[in-house]
Amino acid sequence: MTLSLSVAKSHRQPWPGLIEQYREYLPVNEKTPVITLLEGNTPLIPVPSIAERIGRQVRVFVKYDGLNPTGSFKDRGMTMAISKAKEAGAKAVICASTGNTSASAAAYAKRGGMRAFVLIPDGYVALGKLAQALLYGAEVLAIKSNFDKALTIVSEIAQKYPVTLVNSVNPYRLEGQKTAAFEIVDVLGNAPDWLCIPVGNAGNITAYWMGFCQYHQVGKCDRLPRMMGFQASGAAPLVNGQPVTHPETIATAIRIGNPASWEKAVAAQSASMGSFNAVTDDEILDAYRLLASEEGIFCEPASAASVAGMLQVKDKIPTGATVVCVLTGNGLKDPETAIKHNHSQFKQGIEPEVEAVAEIMGL
Amino acid sequence: MTLSLSVAKSHRQPWPGLIEQYREYLPVNEKTPVITLLEGNTPLIPVPSIAERIGRQVRVFVKYDGLNPTGSFKDRGMTMAISKAKEAGAKAVICASTGNTSASAAAYAKRGGMRAFVLIPDGYVALGKLAQALLYGAEVLAIKSNFDKALTIVSEIAQKYPVTLVNSVNPYRLEGQKTAAFEIVDVLGNAPDWLCIPVGNAGNITAYWMGFCQYHQVGKCDRLPRMMGFQASGAAPLVNGQPVTHPETIATAIRIGNPASWEKAVAAQSASMGSFNAVTDDEILDAYRLLASEEGIFCEPASAASVAGMLQVKDKIPTGATVVCVLTGNGLKDPETAIKHNHSQFKQGIEPEVEAVAEIMGL
Repeated sequence: MTLSLSVAKSHRQPWPGLIEQYREYLPVNEKTPVITLLEGNTPLIPVPSIAERIGRQVRVFVKYDGLNPTGSFKDRGMTMAISKAKEAGAKAVICASTGNTSASAAAYAKRGGMRAFVLIPDGYVALGKLAQALLYGAEVLAIKSNFDKALTIVSEIAQKYPVTLVNSVNPYRLEGQKTAAFEIVDVLGNAPDWLCIPVGNAGNITAYWMGFCQYHQVGKCDRLPRMMGFQASGAAPLVNGQPVTHPETIATAIRIGNPASWEKAVAAQSASMGSFNAVTDDEILDAYRLLASEEGIFCEPASAASVAGMLQVKDKIPTGATVVCVLTGNGLKDPETAIKHNHSQFKQGIEPEVEAVAEIMGL
Repeated sequence: MTLSLSVAKSHRQPWPGLIEQYREYLPVNEKTPVITLLEGNTPLIPVPSIAERIGRQVRVFVKYDGLNPTGSFKDRGMTMAISKAKEAGAKAVICASTGNTSASAAAYAKRGGMRAFVLIPDGYVALGKLAQALLYGAEVLAIKSNFDKALTIVSEIAQKYPVTLVNSVNPYRLEGQKTAAFEIVDVLGNAPDWLCIPVGNAGNITAYWMGFCQYHQVGKCDRLPRMMGFQASGAAPLVNGQPVTHPETIATAIRIGNPASWEKAVAAQSASMGSFNAVTDDEILDAYRLLASEEGIFCEPASAASVAGMLQVKDKIPTGATVVCVLTGNGLKDPETAIKHNHSQFKQGIEPEVEAVAEIMGL
């Protein structure tokens, strides 16, 4: 090891959070109180083993947004939504969500000194899914009805009372989410050829497209990616062209039958000459295991839909292309699936002797 | 929103992973195959609510190392240990661990194309703790004995066979871990006055001190922090001055009775004029909830020992000082504690009417 006593490298500018980093592209002003956990700046990780399955000099990266502060891409939208709520004087926010949105909303609201309400249907959700929101200090209210009714009630409450709705209809969320596209261009020096992304409520594909287009307009990139949206085959309204009444998939984060951003997502797909395709739960689980066991990356099952989809249509990827697959959430959010669907060895009852262990190891 | 059409900001240099970032300070050479998940570069987050409890213009930050790729600081050491194992031609690595080390070892080993073996005692561990390692493709072997025997066997296997031991005795791990100190100095522009850190096996406090000292030697900082190590009161050998036979604490990641880096940690504490102190499980849980519910930061219980300890001795912090508390792991690693020990409201059986919900919200 050599310890250079010579020049001190110039300091690396610390990441200031996505609002400060991309302030000029966001609807904030000098009076907006920025509520931040230094979200964003998530790694764009090369996945060479997966790229090998495609060959033809195709480069593949994953945008690992599970490394945001609460473990999902929702933090990008929530730093915006909560900062704007605070700017507007809100003392409380509300959402109907049983997953990543409620965790993110609770974290940012509480950091901003606001109350965070989460409305859910009675008996709907395993307590584990709410562990995060509860620890962040969310006030969780379970109503004797279903999820649609919870959505209706939170909307009405936000209309009648000084409480800000931070469900996906909140327009600031997509503004924050678009910064992931900026980050990709900032790292690659241009837009990728393909952007593969899981599609549930269809907000994120909408936000990425908005981000790429805006960066293109200001000359930060000179091309735009094909937007390749992938849905779970049991919850694929955009592929089928009609809502799904009872969506079913292991990928709970994209188990949505009637996406809120349907039209915007179709616009992005169409304008970019991309496509929507469905992947089966088996394909999702294969990609989920592949990412973990060959690339060392642990994502939520829903996240793996982007990689599963890319592999499904890999023959259409141009030779030498650069592809980015979006991984929206951290695998730690769903340990049950990891336990149930891993293909690893777990051998018990081994004699506590070096030779016995070595033999089992195949040494 | 204004979209500036003028100057494109210079590209932010993407984070290359900690080995590339700090290559000149690390025992690597141009032949070392760098196995990286772009670990490091974790946020240094201001925690103003916690600082208010101290007052006197004290600035407090947390180094949130739970945002490393596998969710803990172990990735810093593992990128080094696995890269050096690969350089040495190893085809497999082994460790005895039931927690963060096994997850990190598995992720990096598999990314590097090596086998990853994890030796544990039969029946010792809840399957949930191994979810990550199993999904990464670790081969988990449970022996009919205890944890000490597992440690002995992995050492002997590493001596007899071409398998690299990546437990804490692997010297490259501390080399990687010291980079967290570099990052703190790079962001603050100098070393903090105090560095508060949970102490279990005592490797991390040793590594941080090494990092601060090396950076001081090359002129990157002109002072050195007091190293304030905090142990759980049921597992506080460094505070008591003797090993603890049956360590007990809710903070499982620091439930260690006889730390491997005992002497080095004492040297760091002594040279820095720091101290070791014990915090109770109640203090740890208070800090754990405080971080989540006021700052929006979800860490492992063991991580919260640093904040609990700082608050315990807060009257000793100099006025105007800068304090960094190290949060070693992501709270998502331990959802059970979040469910069991949150103080949040969870109200069920509410009538599905706006007025009923609003009343419960206190509107």
